[in-house]
Amino acid sequence: MTDGAAHESMFTIEATPVKFGAGAAHDAGWEMRRLGGQRVFVVVDPEVLARGVARPVLDSLAAAGLDTVLYSEVETEPGLAALERAVAAAREARPDAFVAIGGGSAIDTAKVANLLYTHGGDIMDYVNPPVGRGLKPPSPLRPLLAVPTTAGSGSEATTVAILDLPDLKIKTGISHRALRPAQALVDPELSRAAPGAVIASAGLDVVCHAAESFLSRPYTSRPRPTSPDERPPYQGSNPVADLWSAQALRYGGQYLRRAVASGDDTEARGLMMLSATMAGVGFGSAGVHIPHACAYPLAGLRHTYRDPGYPGDKNFVPHGFSVIVTAPAAFRFTFDADPAKHLQAATCLTGRSYAPDDRDALPRALLELMRDVGAPSGVAALGYGEPDIPALIDGALKQQRLLAVAPKQPSRDDLERIFRESLHNW
Amino acid sequence: MTDGAAHESMFTIEATPVKFGAGAAHDAGWEMRRLGGQRVFVVVDPEVLARGVARPVLDSLAAAGLDTVLYSEVETEPGLAALERAVAAAREARPDAFVAIGGGSAIDTAKVANLLYTHGGDIMDYVNPPVGRGLKPPSPLRPLLAVPTTAGSGSEATTVAILDLPDLKIKTGISHRALRPAQALVDPELSRAAPGAVIASAGLDVVCHAAESFLSRPYTSRPRPTSPDERPPYQGSNPVADLWSAQALRYGGQYLRRAVASGDDTEARGLMMLSATMAGVGFGSAGVHIPHACAYPLAGLRHTYRDPGYPGDKNFVPHGFSVIVTAPAAFRFTFDADPAKHLQAATCLTGRSYAPDDRDALPRALLELMRDVGAPSGVAALGYGEPDIPALIDGALKQQRLLAVAPKQPSRDDLERIFRESLHNW
Repeated sequence: MTDGAAHESMFTIEATPVKFGAGAAHDAGWEMRRLGGQRVFVVVDPEVLARGVARPVLDSLAAAGLDTVLYSEVETEPGLAALERAVAAAREARPDAFVAIGGGSAIDTAKVANLLYTHGGDIMDYVNPPVGRGLKPPSPLRPLLAVPTTAGSGSEATTVAILDLPDLKIKTGISHRALRPAQALVDPELSRAAPGAVIASAGLDVVCHAAESFLSRPYTSRPRPTSPDERPPYQGSNPVADLWSAQALRYGGQYLRRAVASGDDTEARGLMMLSATMAGVGFGSAGVHIPHACAYPLAGLRHTYRDPGYPGDKNFVPHGFSVIVTAPAAFRFTFDADPAKHLQAATCLTGRSYAPDDRDALPRALLELMRDVGAPSGVAALGYGEPDIPALIDGALKQQRLLAVAPKQPSRDDLERIFRESLHNW
Repeated sequence: MTDGAAHESMFTIEATPVKFGAGAAHDAGWEMRRLGGQRVFVVVDPEVLARGVARPVLDSLAAAGLDTVLYSEVETEPGLAALERAVAAAREARPDAFVAIGGGSAIDTAKVANLLYTHGGDIMDYVNPPVGRGLKPPSPLRPLLAVPTTAGSGSEATTVAILDLPDLKIKTGISHRALRPAQALVDPELSRAAPGAVIASAGLDVVCHAAESFLSRPYTSRPRPTSPDERPPYQGSNPVADLWSAQALRYGGQYLRRAVASGDDTEARGLMMLSATMAGVGFGSAGVHIPHACAYPLAGLRHTYRDPGYPGDKNFVPHGFSVIVTAPAAFRFTFDADPAKHLQAATCLTGRSYAPDDRDALPRALLELMRDVGAPSGVAALGYGEPDIPALIDGALKQQRLLAVAPKQPSRDDLERIFRESLHNW
């Protein structure tokens, strides 16, 4: 910011209405009727459908007398073609409301299908610039009822849909408040069947969302926008986002290990789902930055990684693993921007207290958690080596929308150090 | 609850989207256009209008080219006649959106005008039973943009509108999620001109909302409703409401004294406004109980109290004073229900820690704060004596909707002790 420019003086916060608890999924029909839906396009993850996890939601919609069109060709970490198929199916089905059942991929697919079905055009019209045209939807979308089955993306609470563009070797997204679901049903019973590795990756995504938003630059350090239209969705940390982020960190530190260990530990899986939603509200206002910027090329540059604990046979880096591997090094780098707040984040995760100059406290806390839940040991385990670092840096630097809320701006050299330190975290 | 009945397993939480910070009021026109308003019915408190506090909002609406109809016949703690006048004016104006500028009275007046204008009928059709018919609005209302000018009611974040029925000697309300404003603009600059006594009463209301919701019975202790329709708006304490309530208590303990002392302390007045909104979200989900139930007859039974610090010449008990006077005795009574949580509430207010059996910790913390900000010393100072206690008990017992979420159900004898202990708090 140039000297003398006015600083931002306000922040916004908005949360999807949430119904949380065992049995919430059984209210899907009632909620959809309340939202005014009659003919409902139901986007469901195929694994979730195959395992019978979507059953209570589908039964509830049927019992409420709703006319449903089931769409289960959801791709994990969807690309343009997969999203276009969903849009075409929604256009053919002509629904008046949407339901999404699954993880971030299913919910994001429903968001994009709803946007394009409601307002027309092509997906790239709405994708964040400079990759897409960044058009804003002119009015609200059809109501979307989001029913997460993992505890990770927080997509049920956010305004963002992420898409993978392998041809351009990047992941990017569409971001607008109109994309936020009208209601979330967060039912711990639905995550019971999820494999441990899925819970681990999703949970580390939650922890990363929470730590990044908690440590994003203060909203008052941004220049004041010339018009409310110019206020970015990711605004920097603020007292309300901090509440959500800090609590998500506490739950992550207390419950993620237990949630990974057993699907029958519904208390732990439930609180991780709540934590995912809380972190979604937090980062939906404050934003994520360096680890997420680094994750985009880690996920998009090369499609060779197969996680042994994930179902299906698609090669991809699970999103949570892609963000967490660089987090320890990233927070070692940002420590100077606000040492006390970095230590607070570590304390939220571990319950311990730290010396004021312990710049490694948060990285250590994250590494302990990562090892305990079986995360890959670093960037190298995801299939990248020293020679890939320049391309990874290029990819991270493309995410200026994210890096803009980092508490400390990384240069190419800083990013090189972050990737290098993250090759082998242990 | 009868033994063997199933317990509640879920809770809901919903927050009005908030834009917070100095200058937020200047975005009123932009926000109203975003909400789709063209012809806007603007409900504004007459004192607020006279002091020029509404000016930035009105200017912003005009600059956005909106057609506005100004309505400033808002009554403090409005009765049926005052609300009916506002409804008639809205029906004549035929707006497509509403703006409210003022404290809880102005925002509640706009909520009721919007409800009756959108859906027709009489006010008593929608008032909570058994006083009214408890009808539910069949669909959403027109968008309401709420711009609070005090830090108290939290009405910008709640689904409730309160009305005074002096003929029936009670205060009651209308409560439905459709009443929740579509957007709140919380601008600390707008509370700069509010008199200290208004800030004191409003701030004690915030503290009471927060303490009551934090200490309301756990949502899992309620019987499970037979249908989602039967789930009450006040559900009992839950992990998300607790986050909001605890933070509102911390802000109240840290900033209310400063906010009362000086209108120019915009940091303190701003954080009390944020605290009011946070407490609104918290009690909107968890609920308030004994002090608020006792406050209804204290405010409604006799209209003789004139607060020396309040503008205008209407005799009434400012809402915050009516709730806080019985709070110390009420929390002494409820202590056994969850001693640790009562001590946590006291710690949020004071930052101090307490012995595990200190049942007077929270009452003491509240009394200190009340004295420091110039609250009336008790029920006697509000114009009631020993002989009024039976009628006050009758009035409190009518508020079963509130008492249902008390952590411990008060008998007539318990309420008698609470009122008696509260006659003279010092």
